[in-house]
Amino acid sequence: MAGRTHADHAVPFTFGFKAAVWLDEMDRHIDRFQEMKKRLFVGNITGAVGTFANIDPEVEAYVCRKSGLKPAPASSQIIQRDRYAHFFNTLAVLAGSLEKIAVEIRHLQRTEVLEAEEYFSAGQKGSSAMPHKRNPINSENICGLARLVRSYAVAAMENIPLWHERDISHSSVERVIAPDATILVDFMLHRATNLLDRLIVYPERMAENLRKTGGLIFSQQVLLLLTQKGVSREEAYRIVQRNAMQAWERGGDFKKLLLKDKDLARYISRAELEQTFDLRHHLKHVDTIFKRVFG
Amino acid sequence: MAGRTHADHAVPFTFGFKAAVWLDEMDRHIDRFQEMKKRLFVGNITGAVGTFANIDPEVEAYVCRKSGLKPAPASSQIIQRDRYAHFFNTLAVLAGSLEKIAVEIRHLQRTEVLEAEEYFSAGQKGSSAMPHKRNPINSENICGLARLVRSYAVAAMENIPLWHERDISHSSVERVIAPDATILVDFMLHRATNLLDRLIVYPERMAENLRKTGGLIFSQQVLLLLTQKGVSREEAYRIVQRNAMQAWERGGDFKKLLLKDKDLARYISRAELEQTFDLRHHLKHVDTIFKRVFG
Amino acid sequence: MAGRTHADHAVPFTFGFKAAVWLDEMDRHIDRFQEMKKRLFVGNITGAVGTFANIDPEVEAYVCRKSGLKPAPASSQIIQRDRYAHFFNTLAVLAGSLEKIAVEIRHLQRTEVLEAEEYFSAGQKGSSAMPHKRNPINSENICGLARLVRSYAVAAMENIPLWHERDISHSSVERVIAPDATILVDFMLHRATNLLDRLIVYPERMAENLRKTGGLIFSQQVLLLLTQKGVSREEAYRIVQRNAMQAWERGGDFKKLLLKDKDLARYISRAELEQTFDLRHHLKHVDTIFKRVFG
Amino acid sequence: MAGRTHADHAVPFTFGFKAAVWLDEMDRHIDRFQEMKKRLFVGNITGAVGTFANIDPEVEAYVCRKSGLKPAPASSQIIQRDRYAHFFNTLAVLAGSLEKIAVEIRHLQRTEVLEAEEYFSAGQKGSSAMPHKRNPINSENICGLARLVRSYAVAAMENIPLWHERDISHSSVERVIAPDATILVDFMLHRATNLLDRLIVYPERMAENLRKTGGLIFSQQVLLLLTQKGVSREEAYRIVQRNAMQAWERGGDFKKLLLKDKDLARYISRAELEQTFDLRHHLKHVDTIFKRVFG
Repeated sequence: MAGRTHADHAVPFTFGFKAAVWLDEMDRHIDRFQEMKKRLFVGNITGAVGTFANIDPEVEAYVCRKSGLKPAPASSQIIQRDRYAHFFNTLAVLAGSLEKIAVEIRHLQRTEVLEAEEYFSAGQKGSSAMPHKRNPINSENICGLARLVRSYAVAAMENIPLWHERDISHSSVERVIAPDATILVDFMLHRATNLLDRLIVYPERMAENLRKTGGLIFSQQVLLLLTQKGVSREEAYRIVQRNAMQAWERGGDFKKLLLKDKDLARYISRAELEQTFDLRHHLKHVDTIFKRVFG
Repeated sequence: MAGRTHADHAVPFTFGFKAAVWLDEMDRHIDRFQEMKKRLFVGNITGAVGTFANIDPEVEAYVCRKSGLKPAPASSQIIQRDRYAHFFNTLAVLAGSLEKIAVEIRHLQRTEVLEAEEYFSAGQKGSSAMPHKRNPINSENICGLARLVRSYAVAAMENIPLWHERDISHSSVERVIAPDATILVDFMLHRATNLLDRLIVYPERMAENLRKTGGLIFSQQVLLLLTQKGVSREEAYRIVQRNAMQAWERGGDFKKLLLKDKDLARYISRAELEQTFDLRHHLKHVDTIFKRVFG
Repeated sequence: MAGRTHADHAVPFTFGFKAAVWLDEMDRHIDRFQEMKKRLFVGNITGAVGTFANIDPEVEAYVCRKSGLKPAPASSQIIQRDRYAHFFNTLAVLAGSLEKIAVEIRHLQRTEVLEAEEYFSAGQKGSSAMPHKRNPINSENICGLARLVRSYAVAAMENIPLWHERDISHSSVERVIAPDATILVDFMLHRATNLLDRLIVYPERMAENLRKTGGLIFSQQVLLLLTQKGVSREEAYRIVQRNAMQAWERGGDFKKLLLKDKDLARYISRAELEQTFDLRHHLKHVDTIFKRVFG
Repeated sequence: MAGRTHADHAVPFTFGFKAAVWLDEMDRHIDRFQEMKKRLFVGNITGAVGTFANIDPEVEAYVCRKSGLKPAPASSQIIQRDRYAHFFNTLAVLAGSLEKIAVEIRHLQRTEVLEAEEYFSAGQKGSSAMPHKRNPINSENICGLARLVRSYAVAAMENIPLWHERDISHSSVERVIAPDATILVDFMLHRATNLLDRLIVYPERMAENLRKTGGLIFSQQVLLLLTQKGVSREEAYRIVQRNAMQAWERGGDFKKLLLKDKDLARYISRAELEQTFDLRHHLKHVDTIFKRVFG
């Protein structure tokens, strides 16, 4: 399929590459939450301002042990809120990663691209008014929910600087964001998993879109080949760009235009040019990357 | 061109409609800033806590008059920060509107759509490595800047609850966000104006994209016609959707499929069907809307 | 009472001044929402992308009239989200103003200040463990809720740049923030009103706190008097500051220290000095300000 | 000194406890950044969309090794932005912790409390107009800067969902927030360190404030003693609260009031009551906590 930058075809690539980037990102999130556990799973039973004046540290140790928690080394009346702010922040970053996947699907499902689609069952209605519609509503929903989770992180960060040994301003915030942020991210994870599990992928359409630009996507290869032949980068760029722009603006076939270009012909043979339009060149390191990510 | 919802062709529409929505939105922003003037263009020279103990209100009146300001009716040592928070918030909403336009252009410029493009001059390079690229970098830049302006609004809102008659925590915030937010929005407005002024629009491509779905974009019209003929909405939906889905999945021509549908044929003649595929039906109220917006 | 800057006594002042600043701020909020009405109370019934293709503008006009709305001049499938973002932003600014009042009460209620207190009924418990406590929990609650409302504004601003003629990513956000932000601000307004209605104010304590610094709060008056007598500002500052610092650090009475200062005695008589410690000087413009605010 | 909750005296406590809570929090921040290193110190040289089509993975490995980085297992054209969003978020949480310390100092420095103060040199001016002022401007500045750093985190989180294999919308954001957020937090750390290094602490004033409530701060001890004597918690609360409220409202000495209370006298002897007003009771676990934090 087309690898895209700036929503514009760049060079060829595969859907598996995309998925590898996503999986690698999810691994980072798992690491983040694993690392955070030791800071989150703590308790304190230390009295009104944290001094154990009327309760023995043994009680704290006992209750924490029974609850699967560790005693916080030092706390005021309460567990300090940097711990939770970092948790909500990290949830928001995870939500952003899920949004990234959802945005990708929304792009791939657009009418003109249609390289992938959310599962759409036989009897389902995409739009009550327009029977032809199949909308990526789950992906759009994930994008909206990411905004909510991000906003909760803002409130969680404002909860850190409580007054003295505690004020209760954080409480109303946490009553809302603690259930909402965790439930939403749980829901988003389920929805994203389900969405990817059942994602309909159209490889033929990917190939078709790749071909749509008449080979423009191989412009980098032609440029590199020219420079390897001793052409200055500036001159090479000029040669390739003028043919690319013509193909772009008038929809012609890029390779055919290049074959007619006399300047190019001085350096590159027809056979060599054909070779630069070979998809396999771009996929030769698939395994390198897959081994890195999938192990 | 295709009107799109969920990034999917919905019903036909024109680029002018889109622009009318934008212009109407910009008019709202002008109103917002006009209304805000009376709250922003105020001054105070009232002394350490706002009492005029050592300075006569006449001095405040005189200086404000000379500066084109009005004296704030009541102030502590300083002008209250709700005035500025609301200003930065409103800048951020304006930035969001500019981002909306920029997102639209990024979509329209994608390889598969290519209905409009940022101006690209003859000698320009879109990508140093890929000579065929023409990237919507101004639009992308506007999107990034909108994030910054939004974030400044968050800081400005936190500046409101200063302690007692003033603390100085707002100062460091304002030294950064006051120049940055105003300069960025000014820059974004210039960039967006320039971008729209020189936007390259491809009407033929718009028409081509419209036709790409083999008429699917008229599905709503067929549905409505069937219901006008007395068919229940459920039944009408079924008839239209089954043909739409076939066109969608296998790429067939929607109108041809409908013409072959025996259920449909019981209610709608060939001539009637042809009429529902008429673009003019969708554009009949262009003038109504233009008159509302452009006056 | 002491007017305070940097949480430090500045110059004398009254609680009424404080309230005037608050009232003036609330008047601005009322204006903001009044001005916004015309942008918020709009409707659209324009069809799938805003063209009135299948519905007459008359229908929109009729329904809007019946609903007390005005038709939006131009809309896509939906009302554009800058309208709502600005509404949620303005709610958040209002929430920040309520937070400012709440922060003030929290400060005034602290043990060492105790110039005002939230109403505390006979049988009420302030803390289950510490029977002497009377905590400003309503004010603290308002501060927490302001964080939530601010965070909702962030999500609302991200809702502006929807794709093309609409995507549905805004919907999940609005289902949460529309009820939550409006209900919370309504609740905060009620709570703040009730809190101020029943606020216990301790004028004697205010006077007592004013006197606590042994007259330091009048240092500005002494400084000004010295300069009126022809002393350079630098020299005057030195004279006043050295006595002020002694009073501050060793707790002495500022006026007595000044009376013993030989440099000061060269310019200012005892009678003149006594006059500079007159509270009435600071309150002479109360009526000016009250007339501006309370009309 | 008084441990305070809701800005109200709770039970006795020491400044060292407060510092232990701060140090423990800073240790968590160090851990967070240490853990993050492996996700931040990565590089990629993988070509236009991440495939190594025109560059060997060995080059990436070599350059990364020379730069002290590890190759990112999978990347598109660029390093994925969840890595940076998490970094900026964590900076913002650290900024919030520094703000907490700054808020504490601002409270302790207020005129009525004055238990600690920012260093103030001999010739320094606190306020140009009020020679007696010594304002906690460094602490206030830290609070303002925390707002900025928080706001940058919001923008960083919005940078995650880039389009396809990269768009350039993140770039303008990062050009601002990368230098600003890191420089600001570096500055805040230096300022906070310097501030704490040179902080002036007034132990006598702490003791004086402790005594100000006539022993109210020991109310919890009296309550607990009563319940140990077999009095129901409700009855015990009533006895202690009625004396506490009298002391609070009329400023009497709490211990003296209790000694006159006949209900209390039935359960507690004078000697026992005296013992409950012993500060040492509250400090017996200082070492336990210090060992946990300072090791």
